[in-house]
Amino acid sequence: MSSDSTTTLAELRNLVRRFVEERDWRQFHSPKNLSMSLAIEAAELMEHFQWIDIAESRQVGEDSGKLAEVRDEIADVLCYLLALANELDIDLSGAIRDKMVKNAAKYPVERSRGRYAPPEREGNAP
Amino acid sequence: MSSDSTTTLAELRNLVRRFVEERDWRQFHSPKNLSMSLAIEAAELMEHFQWIDIAESRQVGEDSGKLAEVRDEIADVLCYLLALANELDIDLSGAIRDKMVKNAAKYPVERSRGRYAPPEREGNAP
Amino acid sequence: MSSDSTTTLAELRNLVRRFVEERDWRQFHSPKNLSMSLAIEAAELMEHFQWIDIAESRQVGEDSGKLAEVRDEIADVLCYLLALANELDIDLSGAIRDKMVKNAAKYPVERSRGRYAPPEREGNAP
Amino acid sequence: MSSDSTTTLAELRNLVRRFVEERDWRQFHSPKNLSMSLAIEAAELMEHFQWIDIAESRQVGEDSGKLAEVRDEIADVLCYLLALANELDIDLSGAIRDKMVKNAAKYPVERSRGRYAPPEREGNAP
Repeated sequence: MSSDSTTTLAELRNLVRRFVEERDWRQFHSPKNLSMSLAIEAAELMEHFQWIDIAESRQVGEDSGKLAEVRDEIADVLCYLLALANELDIDLSGAIRDKMVKNAAKYPVERSRGRYAPPEREGNAP
Repeated sequence: MSSDSTTTLAELRNLVRRFVEERDWRQFHSPKNLSMSLAIEAAELMEHFQWIDIAESRQVGEDSGKLAEVRDEIADVLCYLLALANELDIDLSGAIRDKMVKNAAKYPVERSRGRYAPPEREGNAP
Repeated sequence: MSSDSTTTLAELRNLVRRFVEERDWRQFHSPKNLSMSLAIEAAELMEHFQWIDIAESRQVGEDSGKLAEVRDEIADVLCYLLALANELDIDLSGAIRDKMVKNAAKYPVERSRGRYAPPEREGNAP
Repeated sequence: MSSDSTTTLAELRNLVRRFVEERDWRQFHSPKNLSMSLAIEAAELMEHFQWIDIAESRQVGEDSGKLAEVRDEIADVLCYLLALANELDIDLSGAIRDKMVKNAAKYPVERSRGRYAPPEREGNAP
């Protein structure tokens, strides 16, 4: 059973909050610094896909060693995202739901199927 | 009541999965491309903190206009993170919990309080 | 005497070109991969400034150890930038000059002095 | 005739220095902020290669419209790199030459030909 099916966002946020508070690290966790941290961790994640091609990147899930490394980096990105949401008191579920409504308007199903640009203009964004 | 306190990770993952599948976008969603997307969105989030200082960045939560923009960017980062977890079939709650155990070993509470480097070496990492 | 005052861009481009060709690495140096590499190196550079404040970052030039590390990261970013310019056959001097003309039009001296936003709109960009 | 063959690094650095000083922008140009700017511009460059595959990215040079956009982004990255070198008073030519010596030791020609990892370990880095 996957624990994502029973774990709420709030539980993970609390895990991160406690870790930060126990170490008195909120003094370093300004939104400016956390936004840098998030970008740095995203780059470290990207490093695992830097020199391989698109097809090979789809095989990473089959290689348990590589997958473990990628899983670790994804956790780092998510930790900083949760820390930032904690600092700014942003409800992530609400933010995602609101964004998906906007995205659905920007990329209507019938006109976006298999196309990665919004219908109204040339662009780049699934 | 915050919806993060009742929303599971799996619910958000399904929201993203459905959006992607309805548009037949999995063909674009290779882990390589998604890692780039995550880094691009993290940079867009960082842009909101680019020219302000650390103290000002802590005030962003007070400015509802700016907060709405930042909230939108955070949602974008999280969407791609969830999409990547979907592609690689990674349980995020487990990944975070495992990482927090490693982090707790690397940054023991007593020796890390108010210090942003691991005790054993000079470094840079809350 | 600084060697930047006597070294042309072409000399540095040739240095990188030779290094890449000797190792038969052009096969890895697609523009897509190089753009990722550039972003990854930029993040590694940023890591040196992640947890320090703005004033401290101005002191990095006084600390010879830190400066050496930062200098190394800047070299990495520039190497990939030159490699990308080589792959796409872009004249960098021309690209910069053209961009500075656009920037000068966007940020007229009198109306941009000490302000980091273009005059016509709120924005974020020195 | 390519202007990179006659333009020195110092000339481009002066171009950027003058632009920044005329607008009294050094106050915003702390190394911390400039490292963020560099990463942000690198991400904007990467955006042009986000959804295309490796082979397509090699064709960008043939498409004059796309090439012009990419050239513009590369100029932005280089501008911030030059601004950072100006702030920290780093000689770029010397930095690159020193780094290439290190890289040549790390990736000896005979053992690195066509392989993108250093010989001594599994890794990821042309």
